[in-house]
Amino acid sequence: MLNNFILRGNICYSKSAQHLDIIEQGYLICEAGVSRGVFKELPEKYKGLEIRDFKNNIIIPGLVDLHVHAPQFSFRSLGMDMELLEWLETNAFPEEAKFKNTSYAEEAYGLFVDDLVKGATTRASIFATIHPEATQVLAKQLEKAGIKSYVGKLNMDRNSPEILCEDSAMRSAADTRFWLEETLAAGYEHVKPILTPRFTPSCSDELMDYLSELQREYHVPLQSHLSENYSEIEWVRQLCPESKCYGDAYDRFGLFGSQEPVIMAHCVHSSEYETALMKERGVMIAHCPNSNTNVMSGIAPVRFYMDAGLSVGLGSDVAGGFTTSIFRAMSDTIRMSKMRWRLVDDSLKPLTIEEAFYLATRGGGAFFGKVGSFEEGYEFDAVVLDDDNIASTLKPCIKQRLERLIYLADDRNVRHKYAGGVQVL
Amino acid sequence: MLNNFILRGNICYSKSAQHLDIIEQGYLICEAGVSRGVFKELPEKYKGLEIRDFKNNIIIPGLVDLHVHAPQFSFRSLGMDMELLEWLETNAFPEEAKFKNTSYAEEAYGLFVDDLVKGATTRASIFATIHPEATQVLAKQLEKAGIKSYVGKLNMDRNSPEILCEDSAMRSAADTRFWLEETLAAGYEHVKPILTPRFTPSCSDELMDYLSELQREYHVPLQSHLSENYSEIEWVRQLCPESKCYGDAYDRFGLFGSQEPVIMAHCVHSSEYETALMKERGVMIAHCPNSNTNVMSGIAPVRFYMDAGLSVGLGSDVAGGFTTSIFRAMSDTIRMSKMRWRLVDDSLKPLTIEEAFYLATRGGGAFFGKVGSFEEGYEFDAVVLDDDNIASTLKPCIKQRLERLIYLADDRNVRHKYAGGVQVL
Repeated sequence: MLNNFILRGNICYSKSAQHLDIIEQGYLICEAGVSRGVFKELPEKYKGLEIRDFKNNIIIPGLVDLHVHAPQFSFRSLGMDMELLEWLETNAFPEEAKFKNTSYAEEAYGLFVDDLVKGATTRASIFATIHPEATQVLAKQLEKAGIKSYVGKLNMDRNSPEILCEDSAMRSAADTRFWLEETLAAGYEHVKPILTPRFTPSCSDELMDYLSELQREYHVPLQSHLSENYSEIEWVRQLCPESKCYGDAYDRFGLFGSQEPVIMAHCVHSSEYETALMKERGVMIAHCPNSNTNVMSGIAPVRFYMDAGLSVGLGSDVAGGFTTSIFRAMSDTIRMSKMRWRLVDDSLKPLTIEEAFYLATRGGGAFFGKVGSFEEGYEFDAVVLDDDNIASTLKPCIKQRLERLIYLADDRNVRHKYAGGVQVL
Repeated sequence: MLNNFILRGNICYSKSAQHLDIIEQGYLICEAGVSRGVFKELPEKYKGLEIRDFKNNIIIPGLVDLHVHAPQFSFRSLGMDMELLEWLETNAFPEEAKFKNTSYAEEAYGLFVDDLVKGATTRASIFATIHPEATQVLAKQLEKAGIKSYVGKLNMDRNSPEILCEDSAMRSAADTRFWLEETLAAGYEHVKPILTPRFTPSCSDELMDYLSELQREYHVPLQSHLSENYSEIEWVRQLCPESKCYGDAYDRFGLFGSQEPVIMAHCVHSSEYETALMKERGVMIAHCPNSNTNVMSGIAPVRFYMDAGLSVGLGSDVAGGFTTSIFRAMSDTIRMSKMRWRLVDDSLKPLTIEEAFYLATRGGGAFFGKVGSFEEGYEFDAVVLDDDNIASTLKPCIKQRLERLIYLADDRNVRHKYAGGVQVL
């Protein structure tokens, strides 16, 4: 029997956004890559399975990164003294253009994937570039590493620099079809394709029509950007005067959740109308507080979205964000919600530890199926955390140790990692 | 000859808030604990000195932490879901009360000092507790470690829990005198005493009078808190109805810079009047963005203070802040100034890399004398940074490598450290 074993340790997972379940010295059962639940006492029927005893370590579900640009990894933490549109022209586009060269892609994506493996992320939805070959390079590396991921070849046929603009909507669609076929034919176990129109300004109506057709044919999900920055939103208003909101510019083509699931990154400045449309379409919001701070977009009203019943998870948004760490995304989520409460709207309470942890695991995990918890039937993504290097005279409880890790953890604290029952680290 | 040597590497230091000087493969001369300047070519007269060649590493002035609570180190990153006054009652006061026990102080301060040594900080102005013995324990540990520091025994004679309240103003003053005498008699090379009334709410007028007398007698500087949180400011207004502003409640006793230099931490919500008074009195502001976010105080208008010619440096404010890292204080300074620009006042431009670096070195260093730069005559505080673990395909220039470290550095990047010409790490 493959992938059947038991992890022992201090187990933490979300039952809901408000309820964090903690089992001290519990047993977490993995059978065929799926969780069979967490037990305080080991049930008789599992007593034959190998027990991997991590003693006083903390075991949590793998973290989920709903939004990350793999080709931007090399310039993370550089050149962040500008807003979105200038930042794209100055930093993102020139670097992404290099991925026409697949040997450059091999090297650069290798560094990104290495970094992802060392951290606590087990699931990611990833933007590549417009280049089908380089995107395949990334997919192969993720497959080999065992990171469960959606990977998207980008679409860009307008308002993009010549070095990073596809020749025509038809050419962009043809490349996307080629890439989809090749990705599906590769028979990856861990990697799936996701349609990725960069954002409305870089995709013509004709291209959106093609993508809608491809989505109906291939039944693949979609990821893009939404209402991140004031200038961007105004630009979309000018480009799509007939759209009732930025989201509607996707929705008119069936690309806002009416056909297949979608992730929309940011939603910092979504209108009431757009918020209602996201709820109706079941859009998954990727909240990216690190990036939203660095490129000065603002602070998304996450509490409002959660209270309104929308789906939310977290994204690192490297390299608008400067780190792939979803621990950092959690602490930034809490801290920025505090600043929003203080400076913008004190009717929206800051997020709690429980809520940030939920968003980073079960919240975003929902996009991948039954992912992000240890309840019976969930895919077995687990991270073993060692916090011995966090010096203190106190004897904090498990909840406090988890809280501390959310603020202080780095890859030194990640001891082991499993994705779908397979050990990745 | 003691402490005479040369460091070689890529040398960065501030000439002013706007001007960062970078000398690739330069020579930094240390003579008798003082910098003799940075040279692209090694001057003839220094050719006999030992050269410590750090090749491609980056060498910067030691970082300065203007505000940190040593006894709070053990609960950093815990219990931050509350505002200042509740947070003090719940987290800070019970932990600080433990320092009545000097063996607890030995252990807890040991962890704090170890952490400080591993990081890039060479100078710190530190709050201890009300306990003279424990404060001496801390001073001895800092002295042994070679961290150049001001250490303050706290004064608290009102509005404090019984376990952490001095019996009377007279007793608080007597303990402070005893501690001052003992500290001065110890003949520390690296550690100096600093008067530390916790904040106005915890110090009676009678106690402030005693402290003023002590200051005139001993000529020691002073550190305290100012205008951090709305409820705190309102409380001070009620306690001191005759004061024109919170700062005036110190100034009335000569404790706001008119007698000796002072550091005031936070200044998040200082009025125009208070700002003018700080400028007039030469008050050094300790900006603590990590803490101001965690305990939801707000974002201080650092750009305004700098433009107005006030003195500003950075503080970690552990454990309102969750890390002693002044790199983190720099990146939080930049990021929070961006949020203030976006959400509060777009007339105050976000801070630049140069400005944040200046605040963390020369800005705060000014409180210690000629500290925080490598210009001729500055005390020789230097940190050697190795950024080889920051993977990238790019070949960033030195300025970019420094920028990257401001966002990504942790103690793994700190290779060596010198304070006053003495190697500390």
